[in-house]
Amino acid sequence: MTECPALLADRFNTLRYDAERGAVILLDRRLYPFATEYIECYTAEEVALAIEEMVVQGGPPLAYAAGLGLALAAFQNSHRAAADRRAALRAAAVRLLATRPTADDLHHIVPQALAVGVAKMDGDESPGVAVLDFVNGAIERGNRVSRACGEFAAGLIADGDRILTHCFAGAALAWMLWIAKEQGKRVHLYPTETRPYLQGARLTAATATEMGIPCTLITDNMPAFLMSRGVIDKFICAADRITLDGHITNKIGTFQIALAAHHHHLPFYVLGYDGPDPQTATGADIPIEERKPDEIFFARGIDPQTGRPGKIRTAVEGIDGYYPAFDITPPELIAGIVTDRGIFEPSRIREYIGAEKHE
Amino acid sequence: MTECPALLADRFNTLRYDAERGAVILLDRRLYPFATEYIECYTAEEVALAIEEMVVQGGPPLAYAAGLGLALAAFQNSHRAAADRRAALRAAAVRLLATRPTADDLHHIVPQALAVGVAKMDGDESPGVAVLDFVNGAIERGNRVSRACGEFAAGLIADGDRILTHCFAGAALAWMLWIAKEQGKRVHLYPTETRPYLQGARLTAATATEMGIPCTLITDNMPAFLMSRGVIDKFICAADRITLDGHITNKIGTFQIALAAHHHHLPFYVLGYDGPDPQTATGADIPIEERKPDEIFFARGIDPQTGRPGKIRTAVEGIDGYYPAFDITPPELIAGIVTDRGIFEPSRIREYIGAEKHE
Repeated sequence: MTECPALLADRFNTLRYDAERGAVILLDRRLYPFATEYIECYTAEEVALAIEEMVVQGGPPLAYAAGLGLALAAFQNSHRAAADRRAALRAAAVRLLATRPTADDLHHIVPQALAVGVAKMDGDESPGVAVLDFVNGAIERGNRVSRACGEFAAGLIADGDRILTHCFAGAALAWMLWIAKEQGKRVHLYPTETRPYLQGARLTAATATEMGIPCTLITDNMPAFLMSRGVIDKFICAADRITLDGHITNKIGTFQIALAAHHHHLPFYVLGYDGPDPQTATGADIPIEERKPDEIFFARGIDPQTGRPGKIRTAVEGIDGYYPAFDITPPELIAGIVTDRGIFEPSRIREYIGAEKHE
Repeated sequence: MTECPALLADRFNTLRYDAERGAVILLDRRLYPFATEYIECYTAEEVALAIEEMVVQGGPPLAYAAGLGLALAAFQNSHRAAADRRAALRAAAVRLLATRPTADDLHHIVPQALAVGVAKMDGDESPGVAVLDFVNGAIERGNRVSRACGEFAAGLIADGDRILTHCFAGAALAWMLWIAKEQGKRVHLYPTETRPYLQGARLTAATATEMGIPCTLITDNMPAFLMSRGVIDKFICAADRITLDGHITNKIGTFQIALAAHHHHLPFYVLGYDGPDPQTATGADIPIEERKPDEIFFARGIDPQTGRPGKIRTAVEGIDGYYPAFDITPPELIAGIVTDRGIFEPSRIREYIGAEKHE
């Protein structure tokens, strides 16, 4: 198996701690691939703002960014008195946890990283290196999980499949497509553009292009029609959180595509990475983030005249907007949840927790 | 009943023949309401291009524009020899009919206007005035139909209704909202933005604002989620063509919203204007227009820096795109089709043809 050439297949390509500069370096996913620009964050607050402003998106990546932000806080406060540095690290964790409520990864990695730091401080040691090592270990593990999940998903793909996807399903999507290609399967990807941030038109389309996977973009209102015309074989996307009873939350729009797939008897597979959140019993327990209404009044892209990233106002003034960033799909609409430990029926996803690791 | 203050409630506000200039004047709906600019067409070919390029959109308005284009050709060729002017008028009709395949109005009004012109020429009279009078009569009749359809639709609305709509449902939507308001009913409108042309974010939102109707914009991927949260009471949109067995075609996306409404037991009403197309038996007989893939790679709007209309590229280079402009919703997903002659169950829409006129 050769390495997947997609930039977003390896999280270290997009986020890292730079010890020399004392900064967290993040790929600006609002611009990529129109521009490959990195943002340097010099405080945990700057990392938190970058997460809130969608510099980094996707459940695991934004969790890793937050973890690196906590490492930054740990390094920066290491010279302070014991009580002060402990308080500062806790405050940074609280701030980073408050950025995004829906995906569960953030709410696992930051508390765990904080615990690692606190344990060091309990031993009167400096917490920075330990927190950073923990987070880098989580990123490495996340890369392995993505590849394993993508490998199981590739097993679901048949030669000639036309796969609909929504938003950017992350590194596992890249691995799934790459491994299927290496297995000699021809795949045609249909990404929705995914308003308002257009992750499909940018991140998913760029990822497919980097791997030489044929890619036909559609807008978010087209999936049901394509299904009715027999153009789609499978719907595959990711999940920001999976509940113990097999509900999934993912980018707004997933639910209505799942309804359309169900109506047309097409399978919907979820790239479930490292499985369900042990803390979340069912869909009603998932907090759905509501972002600023203003964000749906604009479209980002590249100015065709200047060639530079920019944005345009697409809506009239004087109206309200509503921007729920995620929705919830119930287990009866899902054919299977693909994880690094195999493929589960949604109603049996709880079994992931006891399943053998395939890593 | 006071007059509806929405600009788009009266088609004469947006399209007309200017005898002094010898031109068809069309509101540029790609820009409205960011800019209220009118395009002047001096030949039938220019009118055809304006229709193809979405200067005018919506089944009836684009049909009226084509009719005015035919009147223009009739005036311009009136000095020519009998055989030549007849050939020229037929050629103009063929060109105008070729602009858009899906909505039926075009395919009624242009042949009828041509027949009026040919009849005049058969009597060796100049066809221009007769064709123009016919088309202006059709526009007047269309305005009356819109108001009557809107009045029946207003009867379906309950005080406090939260109405989801898709694309711009035209003058009947404006009348429905205005009459409901005059009846003292409070209505909250939720338009989808409707990619790629964003008719919802511009035309529908502006129409609601002009009438003081509260309006909350959402993106095309949000309807099912809003329904799942109990935020929507009814889904109401228009149709570009209605078949004799109760299928409707409308802006791409209507079908998947109708599926979501059905799943949530919410009624879907179609503003059906002057009823079914007597030439179209069922959904499979409707030609679905496929527009240039390039159109989904951009978003139009207003540049926040210059305040001028502009566009931005929203998708990466090097991919394909697919742009079916309409989809088809079957009768079992529709609660009722509202016309100028009353409200019909979809399976009984054929009865419209014999129904008493309420005009």
